[in-house]
Amino acid sequence: MLDINIKGTIPKNMEERGLNILSDNLGEIENILNQRKMPKKGLSDEKIELLLNFLANMDTDKDPKAIRVGEREARISSEIHKKLSSNFCHGIGRSGNLVDPQPKAPGASAMYALTNKILESFLKNLNVNVNALATPVSTGMSIALCLSALKRGFLVENSKMDKDTKITTKQYSKYDGANVVIYPYASHKSPIKSTSFVGMRMRFVETKLSDKDDCVEIPVEDIISATEKELKDGKNPVILSTLTFFPPRRSDDVEEISKYCLENNIPHIINGAYAIQNHKYLDKLKKALKYRVDAIVSSTDKNLMTPIGGGIIYSKDKNFLKEVSLTYPGRASATPIVNTFVSLLSMGMDKYTYLMKEQVKNKNLLDELLVDLANKTENKKLDVDSPIASCITTKKDPIDVSAKLYNLRVTGPRGIKTTDHFGNCYMQDYKYNYVVMNASIGVKETDVINAVNKLSKVI
Amino acid sequence: MLDINIKGTIPKNMEERGLNILSDNLGEIENILNQRKMPKKGLSDEKIELLLNFLANMDTDKDPKAIRVGEREARISSEIHKKLSSNFCHGIGRSGNLVDPQPKAPGASAMYALTNKILESFLKNLNVNVNALATPVSTGMSIALCLSALKRGFLVENSKMDKDTKITTKQYSKYDGANVVIYPYASHKSPIKSTSFVGMRMRFVETKLSDKDDCVEIPVEDIISATEKELKDGKNPVILSTLTFFPPRRSDDVEEISKYCLENNIPHIINGAYAIQNHKYLDKLKKALKYRVDAIVSSTDKNLMTPIGGGIIYSKDKNFLKEVSLTYPGRASATPIVNTFVSLLSMGMDKYTYLMKEQVKNKNLLDELLVDLANKTENKKLDVDSPIASCITTKKDPIDVSAKLYNLRVTGPRGIKTTDHFGNCYMQDYKYNYVVMNASIGVKETDVINAVNKLSKVI
Amino acid sequence: MLDINIKGTIPKNMEERGLNILSDNLGEIENILNQRKMPKKGLSDEKIELLLNFLANMDTDKDPKAIRVGEREARISSEIHKKLSSNFCHGIGRSGNLVDPQPKAPGASAMYALTNKILESFLKNLNVNVNALATPVSTGMSIALCLSALKRGFLVENSKMDKDTKITTKQYSKYDGANVVIYPYASHKSPIKSTSFVGMRMRFVETKLSDKDDCVEIPVEDIISATEKELKDGKNPVILSTLTFFPPRRSDDVEEISKYCLENNIPHIINGAYAIQNHKYLDKLKKALKYRVDAIVSSTDKNLMTPIGGGIIYSKDKNFLKEVSLTYPGRASATPIVNTFVSLLSMGMDKYTYLMKEQVKNKNLLDELLVDLANKTENKKLDVDSPIASCITTKKDPIDVSAKLYNLRVTGPRGIKTTDHFGNCYMQDYKYNYVVMNASIGVKETDVINAVNKLSKVI
Amino acid sequence: MLDINIKGTIPKNMEERGLNILSDNLGEIENILNQRKMPKKGLSDEKIELLLNFLANMDTDKDPKAIRVGEREARISSEIHKKLSSNFCHGIGRSGNLVDPQPKAPGASAMYALTNKILESFLKNLNVNVNALATPVSTGMSIALCLSALKRGFLVENSKMDKDTKITTKQYSKYDGANVVIYPYASHKSPIKSTSFVGMRMRFVETKLSDKDDCVEIPVEDIISATEKELKDGKNPVILSTLTFFPPRRSDDVEEISKYCLENNIPHIINGAYAIQNHKYLDKLKKALKYRVDAIVSSTDKNLMTPIGGGIIYSKDKNFLKEVSLTYPGRASATPIVNTFVSLLSMGMDKYTYLMKEQVKNKNLLDELLVDLANKTENKKLDVDSPIASCITTKKDPIDVSAKLYNLRVTGPRGIKTTDHFGNCYMQDYKYNYVVMNASIGVKETDVINAVNKLSKVI
Repeated sequence: MLDINIKGTIPKNMEERGLNILSDNLGEIENILNQRKMPKKGLSDEKIELLLNFLANMDTDKDPKAIRVGEREARISSEIHKKLSSNFCHGIGRSGNLVDPQPKAPGASAMYALTNKILESFLKNLNVNVNALATPVSTGMSIALCLSALKRGFLVENSKMDKDTKITTKQYSKYDGANVVIYPYASHKSPIKSTSFVGMRMRFVETKLSDKDDCVEIPVEDIISATEKELKDGKNPVILSTLTFFPPRRSDDVEEISKYCLENNIPHIINGAYAIQNHKYLDKLKKALKYRVDAIVSSTDKNLMTPIGGGIIYSKDKNFLKEVSLTYPGRASATPIVNTFVSLLSMGMDKYTYLMKEQVKNKNLLDELLVDLANKTENKKLDVDSPIASCITTKKDPIDVSAKLYNLRVTGPRGIKTTDHFGNCYMQDYKYNYVVMNASIGVKETDVINAVNKLSKVI
Repeated sequence: MLDINIKGTIPKNMEERGLNILSDNLGEIENILNQRKMPKKGLSDEKIELLLNFLANMDTDKDPKAIRVGEREARISSEIHKKLSSNFCHGIGRSGNLVDPQPKAPGASAMYALTNKILESFLKNLNVNVNALATPVSTGMSIALCLSALKRGFLVENSKMDKDTKITTKQYSKYDGANVVIYPYASHKSPIKSTSFVGMRMRFVETKLSDKDDCVEIPVEDIISATEKELKDGKNPVILSTLTFFPPRRSDDVEEISKYCLENNIPHIINGAYAIQNHKYLDKLKKALKYRVDAIVSSTDKNLMTPIGGGIIYSKDKNFLKEVSLTYPGRASATPIVNTFVSLLSMGMDKYTYLMKEQVKNKNLLDELLVDLANKTENKKLDVDSPIASCITTKKDPIDVSAKLYNLRVTGPRGIKTTDHFGNCYMQDYKYNYVVMNASIGVKETDVINAVNKLSKVI
Repeated sequence: MLDINIKGTIPKNMEERGLNILSDNLGEIENILNQRKMPKKGLSDEKIELLLNFLANMDTDKDPKAIRVGEREARISSEIHKKLSSNFCHGIGRSGNLVDPQPKAPGASAMYALTNKILESFLKNLNVNVNALATPVSTGMSIALCLSALKRGFLVENSKMDKDTKITTKQYSKYDGANVVIYPYASHKSPIKSTSFVGMRMRFVETKLSDKDDCVEIPVEDIISATEKELKDGKNPVILSTLTFFPPRRSDDVEEISKYCLENNIPHIINGAYAIQNHKYLDKLKKALKYRVDAIVSSTDKNLMTPIGGGIIYSKDKNFLKEVSLTYPGRASATPIVNTFVSLLSMGMDKYTYLMKEQVKNKNLLDELLVDLANKTENKKLDVDSPIASCITTKKDPIDVSAKLYNLRVTGPRGIKTTDHFGNCYMQDYKYNYVVMNASIGVKETDVINAVNKLSKVI
Repeated sequence: MLDINIKGTIPKNMEERGLNILSDNLGEIENILNQRKMPKKGLSDEKIELLLNFLANMDTDKDPKAIRVGEREARISSEIHKKLSSNFCHGIGRSGNLVDPQPKAPGASAMYALTNKILESFLKNLNVNVNALATPVSTGMSIALCLSALKRGFLVENSKMDKDTKITTKQYSKYDGANVVIYPYASHKSPIKSTSFVGMRMRFVETKLSDKDDCVEIPVEDIISATEKELKDGKNPVILSTLTFFPPRRSDDVEEISKYCLENNIPHIINGAYAIQNHKYLDKLKKALKYRVDAIVSSTDKNLMTPIGGGIIYSKDKNFLKEVSLTYPGRASATPIVNTFVSLLSMGMDKYTYLMKEQVKNKNLLDELLVDLANKTENKKLDVDSPIASCITTKKDPIDVSAKLYNLRVTGPRGIKTTDHFGNCYMQDYKYNYVVMNASIGVKETDVINAVNKLSKVI
């Protein structure tokens, strides 16, 4: 593909050395293309950009011989656009399908396919064996894509192989389309709006106060009971469960829900917005994946540290992912996909594993510091079980506390009043006024220490 | 805000000259912020990037004093992400509303507001007096946003001022939500999928062959008739008309449809994907806007030459745009908005006006060359009225002709057979086999000449 | 060298198209490496940067396997350094020789060799058949390199072939080293300082007023006479003639000087700082090159529109260029060489030829406008023969006129008083007060028009 | 200077927060301009680039109102040139003086002045109280600048204040110009070529074998004696001593030489190419600076980790630095100065102090590992006193050993034979065959470990 002819410009032995070094450098890029896996060691930004450069130079708008008389030819009005799109000006997708190869954009199409492959390998390294689809939209819109696919209904392939003849017969059963979303309540606007966006009705299942600890939770029986009511009414319900949310809201018991869904043929979407970063969440996902999970939705910015704008939908069910992909109307910006691609290659598995360990350490530190602070101030660190966030009570107005923290340049804490039913995900008054803080992936030890320090001044 | 102290490093008169030059350079940026209008003369890429730099440096993830303990802090794993997002790592939007200011991202929020302002000024310069919303998704998904807002239903503000007392009373009437889309048929998958995506039914109105020329068209009476049928069934229809499409499909008569919609209180969305680039389209829009148009949807890549991924929704009805904005679930990538911002500032009104004129010239050239070619080859340049695209008949298999053109590196032509009902937007056989070519904004004269030249070899 | 394996990610035909496009794109780079000539059509910045990227990735500091324990390993403290040096952090040159391949930097060494090859091809296209050396220093310092080489003395190869036996015998004669520079006076500080820098004495030859026109000039006889005086004193003189300077100083008659130098074995350096941009200068150089010219020195910023910092030394005498190259003490920044490389590839011959024609047009325009202005204001456009610059008399204080122009943001004009012996290069009073303006390569028509317009207000 | 008007685009409190964050970010830049000192904590690349952007936007080629009719207007032919020069296309310097403000380039001139200020503050932080001049050329050429200034001769200001009247009288004594360089021999080509370049004679002082350890050294008496001989001949000698060189060559006793120079009014230049990185060297410099040191020359790439191409000349004698600056013929590339500027701001004092400590640690590690290796292989780690480099004997051919290391991708080691008089800086045979390795600033612990490991396989 590339003949770097420097013969005669420098002595033979230097030429060889130079070409060897170049070859070793290009080799890192070739490895990615050959292996299509999450690399162990991350690539440098230069290498990633060079790989993206090669891919972008396959799109037809880069064709030096092209004559362009379409109505959409990826013309751009500024060089800045190239940077913003990594020069994938044709975006991704076709009118028919998000992952369909776009004839005008061989490079962008290959990049997208590659991203999905590497994403699957990344999840496999975390022991989550699934198919994966990087989406050009965030968690909320990605949930909408899943719900819309379920709502539309589609043929489900149930191929069977005759054991004697070894002949496989392709069979299809029609899935008729969901029309109501069973939502164990979390005060998260995006899933609610996603449901509304795709034109479905939502049935909330209310939370209860745990009698074991300080959590707010939804018993699986209540979820089942709500689902059964809809079934009785002749509706086609889908359960949208929540794995990751602010405490005191407890994660839904996704394993038990999945069991029920499998036995009763109910579609099941899991909102795991920031699930990938912590093994406690991943373990729950792995258990649920043994039963019925049509798709899990996670955020690229929360888990992979991309700028906001991308999502990940993953599932054991390859067909369902295809249905999701078919749902998207038209092409989309390539940028969120490139962001995902870049994050994976840039960190490599070693860095990600390191960051996961650091997250656990920082969460433990946050807990210790909050216990200390609670002891000193006669407050209580709440008994909730999030692997990311922690709560501490306050005797002051928690809204006021978090406003003061904001002015002290602490971003992220949430102050919630007993009477804030939305904030507490609880229809009655909660037991405490409290403040939530997060030690999510990428947080720095100094941030944790300084945040608690600032909190101690205003609590 | 900025004190550039170089006192004593160079002689006083040089210092003054230097600071004057810097001040003049920064002044171009200040003008944009002060005037919030499409500039007459485009800004250089450096200036635009500097302005974006200032805005991005207002987001909390750039705060050098910030202590960050949220679950989403715009952390990034590679420097490449900064380029891809113009450093607006927090994206745009809140869970509640696409255009709501995001407290973690004052800069991105201001950038978005500014983009919408400049977009409005740009449209105003084209004599289209509307409110405008830049969207972070392409035409198809932007149509979905409009339809979903209509479907959801909402309060409509009808404030009245008492003429005597001069007291204004805010009144609200409930808009109950559309549930069926009347679609004068065009073979464009995206709007069809948009409708499906938001969970609405679509009623097609079939095309007819014109008796005046070679166009395929839908008489307004047929659209009205289809709408009336739905009304009679107690449904709430919305009309989705098409202004821009491949000939021989004629533009819908958006003016007449708008009149009907006004009189009968029917919502009306116009798909004007590439309408902004040509005054014939704009004139039709201006006429329609006198009556009922809830929103017009256009593409940023087709009109403003951005990479694919952004849309523009515009309307005289500010409230409806707000409803559309409220529809989006969650935050989104800032990149498509930045692309729009960049295109507007980069071209300025002078360049855009120039490009519009060039488009008309190149379309005329395309027509002349095709007439010539038709004469020479005993073919016919079809009598259709698109200001962008032209059709020429072929006696060969048009699929084959366009495949040969593709191999000759001509991208964009569509070859359509008489029997291709989808391609022709016509349920019976069309009169001719033909090839479509476009002279859309940004096309080069040499592209037009070379494309017809290549066509002459394979027609 | 590069295997881009995207097999299976996209359909076979798209894969082929994509790889073809990439291959065509990389082909432009391969062409440069294979042909090592000034391209007809310039390359895009992306292509040039990709070529530089490949070359920089051959240097040992990019070796992913390197273990680095030298005292100078091209370590850098900021990513900005990469941009500033095009990632050639090892610079160019060895302690022994500027053009010697540097074992730690095969890529930079190849880039430098390539630059010199392309430079020679560029000059050949302009009908100047010479060897060329891009230097990492400007005109002044490049002249110093030439003088220092001459001063040092060296062996001169005078190989002779026996006509009968056809055997070539390498013979060397010692060149003993120049010790005085004969300088037909021009008020240009750099050559004077260059001479002082290398520790040589300078003998000025004074200018006279021409009796044919308004020029200030040095008769060749005077130059010869000054040289003869030094020879008589047993000195080894070198003549440093000036081809390009502000009028009314006329270009030295480089052809006649070269003839004398050939006949009398006197080294001859021509200061042709901005000679390459105009064929009148080039023609004079071609004539001189038939006789004795040891080296011509030109500026890359004045002729090739690079940032300031590079020079070009060219000569028919390859050995002398080698001597010059051996003179430089140590390594140097690669950046000025890269700038030259970039300019040549970026413009290509077509663009350069176009710019040369524009320069002539703009100079003619400048002359016309100044004649007009002179007529209107009862001034005189001086009768001088520069192909770049023109002079107009003023009845006001010319210093004042040029200061006013500076305040009107006109940069470049020189206002010279009759009594300014330095400015006029003339030891007595010149005939007029005047202002000089330039229409050098790259000047815009609007600049010429606006400058004369501003001048008309202050003259 | 900059009014960022985003009023009304976002809520007032967000606007304030956004502007505060921007103001804090710009504040880091303002601090540099106000304090003109080496910052304690380094600036991010973005901040440095923004500061450079502001400065470059003061140069006249950025003036949006400029009308340009000079012969040299910093026109460029490619956008790449901007990156390569940080947009200081006018370079630095005037024909008269390297540090003179250039009227066409107020920004570049201020940048240069600022660099020198920060450089002085950096050296002051290392307890070296001197004036400093960043040069656009490497060590070799910087030495040439110093020697040329000395050779030229100049007026020395010796102002005296009358104690009674408090009146200061400016007095000048003429310094007549050096004509011979006394060089305690080191096998470093650059200083030798520098001397030749400026047209001076060099008198070598030969090395001797130490009787205390394994060093090769020059007794101060021998240097003095050589100097005296020249004085006796009526010559004006200057001593060029060497502080930093490969062992076994010992550093010259710069303190004693300086004492002698002070007492005897002999100019004294110290070649301290990589002296700044280690306190042992700095201590020697501080002691020497009490007596006569006209200038010390150091490399920016070796000490500050810039790409190759810049130098630092520093001295207590401000006037001499001015003379040096006056020596440079013409303008020069701004890039080497920008590299120095970037390195200083990027590292800040904290990082530099950290790197100095790491260098000492890694040198100790190198010594330990070499002692180990010597013990295991019956070789000897030589008893030499460099704070940077170490030597180990080998029983094999050292040239062969270092060639094998090169093939094992170890860059930097020097293998020297007993008989290599040049390599040993010693006119007779040295006692051992040996290999030299360096632990210079920026070296990584793994490099040291891996290098000795590789060495153990080939020694």
